[in-house]
Amino acid sequence: MEHKIEGNISHLTGVFMRGKCFPSIFFSTKSCKEVKDRYGQAEDGLYYLTTSTGVVYQTFCDMTTAGGGWTLVASVHEDNIYGKCTVGDRWTSQQGNNANWPKGEGNWANRKTFGTVEAATDDDFKNPGYYDIDAEDMSVWHVPNKTPFYHWNLAAIMRYHTERRFLHLYGGNLYYLFHRYPVEYNVGAHLSDNGPSIPIVYDLGDKESTKMFYGPNTRGETEGGFISFRAINLERAATAICSGVKPKGGEVDAYCIGGGGFFPQGNPLQCGDFTSFAWNGYGTNVGWSASKQMLESAVLLFYR
Amino acid sequence: MEHKIEGNISHLTGVFMRGKCFPSIFFSTKSCKEVKDRYGQAEDGLYYLTTSTGVVYQTFCDMTTAGGGWTLVASVHEDNIYGKCTVGDRWTSQQGNNANWPKGEGNWANRKTFGTVEAATDDDFKNPGYYDIDAEDMSVWHVPNKTPFYHWNLAAIMRYHTERRFLHLYGGNLYYLFHRYPVEYNVGAHLSDNGPSIPIVYDLGDKESTKMFYGPNTRGETEGGFISFRAINLERAATAICSGVKPKGGEVDAYCIGGGGFFPQGNPLQCGDFTSFAWNGYGTNVGWSASKQMLESAVLLFYR
Amino acid sequence: MEHKIEGNISHLTGVFMRGKCFPSIFFSTKSCKEVKDRYGQAEDGLYYLTTSTGVVYQTFCDMTTAGGGWTLVASVHEDNIYGKCTVGDRWTSQQGNNANWPKGEGNWANRKTFGTVEAATDDDFKNPGYYDIDAEDMSVWHVPNKTPFYHWNLAAIMRYHTERRFLHLYGGNLYYLFHRYPVEYNVGAHLSDNGPSIPIVYDLGDKESTKMFYGPNTRGETEGGFISFRAINLERAATAICSGVKPKGGEVDAYCIGGGGFFPQGNPLQCGDFTSFAWNGYGTNVGWSASKQMLESAVLLFYR
Repeated sequence: MEHKIEGNISHLTGVFMRGKCFPSIFFSTKSCKEVKDRYGQAEDGLYYLTTSTGVVYQTFCDMTTAGGGWTLVASVHEDNIYGKCTVGDRWTSQQGNNANWPKGEGNWANRKTFGTVEAATDDDFKNPGYYDIDAEDMSVWHVPNKTPFYHWNLAAIMRYHTERRFLHLYGGNLYYLFHRYPVEYNVGAHLSDNGPSIPIVYDLGDKESTKMFYGPNTRGETEGGFISFRAINLERAATAICSGVKPKGGEVDAYCIGGGGFFPQGNPLQCGDFTSFAWNGYGTNVGWSASKQMLESAVLLFYR
Repeated sequence: MEHKIEGNISHLTGVFMRGKCFPSIFFSTKSCKEVKDRYGQAEDGLYYLTTSTGVVYQTFCDMTTAGGGWTLVASVHEDNIYGKCTVGDRWTSQQGNNANWPKGEGNWANRKTFGTVEAATDDDFKNPGYYDIDAEDMSVWHVPNKTPFYHWNLAAIMRYHTERRFLHLYGGNLYYLFHRYPVEYNVGAHLSDNGPSIPIVYDLGDKESTKMFYGPNTRGETEGGFISFRAINLERAATAICSGVKPKGGEVDAYCIGGGGFFPQGNPLQCGDFTSFAWNGYGTNVGWSASKQMLESAVLLFYR
Repeated sequence: MEHKIEGNISHLTGVFMRGKCFPSIFFSTKSCKEVKDRYGQAEDGLYYLTTSTGVVYQTFCDMTTAGGGWTLVASVHEDNIYGKCTVGDRWTSQQGNNANWPKGEGNWANRKTFGTVEAATDDDFKNPGYYDIDAEDMSVWHVPNKTPFYHWNLAAIMRYHTERRFLHLYGGNLYYLFHRYPVEYNVGAHLSDNGPSIPIVYDLGDKESTKMFYGPNTRGETEGGFISFRAINLERAATAICSGVKPKGGEVDAYCIGGGGFFPQGNPLQCGDFTSFAWNGYGTNVGWSASKQMLESAVLLFYR
């Protein structure tokens, strides 16, 4: 098979979707938004991006939701709700529940990366876009574990995005937002020291269905239709993201994920990426327990 | 040094073995078999492959055994037989021996990847070929730990392959085979619910030498000359692969590797990538204990 | 944007620093020294290198210190001094303090790799250059945790290099040096069986400031102005590197980092990447305790 690669190659992009013969020419495209705007790529799929420092990585681009151009930067996956801050709990602590380690793994606010895009619903995922991309909005998909990427959109149990361009106020991405609002035990009190809550627009689901995913006991203290950041619980433990809701009380570990390294109540029962989502049994959706669907879905985080 | 890269580049392949100056042009070659068939590459070594979804990865191709074209997709490595389902036991559980986590890490049947080809005898290895390649047969090499890849063939203590094209019956690779036969505690009983046993052709070793690698107590319940999948033990714990043998009894944890997340007997003594290979002492080859050679070799898994 | 890539491309190198449009043409450049010598690259930053076996990786090149051409091959990072050989302690043991696992993770002398260059002060880092590059000298930077690479030089608390070309005597890199001097519990006695100590030239700091970084109790048994390898303590535990000092006693765990899998004294208090640097409190710099600066900086290792 002959390939002449001299000449005009301006039409080439970073698309490697079911690629046939292609030269691996990387343009310095930093985000899915850039790929869409510059090269008019309109198909959801895997793309190679390059950070401002030249690091190349592969991730998933949602090119269709609300104008497209959404870059998958992370996924929060619970591999074992019975493992309390064990191996795999990268978004809280992998060294147990420990007051001497209040920040835990610290992955909400560092440059560590882990996982792969194809395994983003099999395990945690975090790529350099998380800290490199200068973004305005976020979108979130809750996708059942072990779903291959080409089915994510179809299989998702909830999908939404922001339109307020809120990330401009917080440094342009979660790396900077969580520097301003550290995900750390004992840095503040519930409600008064919480991070921001941003209204969302639903792409699948609504305020009611969102609240139904979390335990009945949570519904009196949440308002649907938001994404909230760095919510603190009654015992001053920090969580990272409350997906689909705004907290109006202090039991945030029942509806917010990720966190620092220490959760005092019922030590260590709240410690882990999906915090206390099984407080009253696995997937029972009674008391504080989330539904089985919520418990068994990975939370995919996108920037635009 | 000048390089003109216009013109006919059909002779370029994915070979990066002791490469001098080369352009990194990736053809969408999915497997070592494809590299051999299409481009006539005849040398064992490291090659870059691309999955059907465009993920690029590097692995080892065995281009010489029985016609060549074998892709290394995984290695099972025991870093510490005394660590019972600790960090590093990716093919069973890294969260201890736990009846609440019957599937354990689940890496036999998910899209997670880990390790590198150069470290495949220093640590576990699993690349996207494991779930992406559509294969017919498997080959297995037992190679002493810490052997560099260019010595694997020479240093191996056992090598064999299948010729029955059995993977066609099970979805084309182990990802699909282990979906059909989950590596999970308590899904079935020993013998009656075991996965398939496939006859093998030896490239180094024979039925007798195979049985000698495992403990004397195992030899009455194994038949040499097979590779077996998802063998279950007396207490309903699942193992993943019995290398070189077919089980005819229920003490499979003494001659089969990998598994789910719970092994009831002697809790937690059977839990770990090399299960109970040191049941009667480290490398003693008495009672149920495997030989030191077997215990200290990584198990390399290939597809064609 | 048009790109003609036919013709003379000898001026292209592996520089991807704030890259605009560029083809990803990899030349088989093995080290930063080679990049500097062959292509005259004079800027510190991220570069892609290729091992002798064709493995491509990205790391940081220091092109300015003492003639430049230094390749970052590893970083030793302490994520939690209270975690005694827990997850993250890759340079000692992640399976606890265990006399049955005297070599621990073994990462000083194997081909495993982990981490990324951008996260080299957020977590441990080790790339294939560690075992692949044939080098003469080393340099070391102690850089505060969570510093982005473009600030490393500026933020470092200590920097030095060797000029003796000592690595020639030990196989050309640390992989070979640590094969000759295994980082393993119980292979020898303090002082008499220690590995080499090499005089250093300071780029930032001096012998006095070096000693001040470690606890007051250490200063009577160290001599500043050296880098030392495989120092053994009184209880026969092995450490890997004593940065900036030569041991003249047996309490090396208070000023040397990394190690094997077992440290008898105060079991498990000495076990971890920064060993017993907090023996008398966190960052107190009293007794045996190192200063807070030393405790909270990652140790970056370079070859030339």
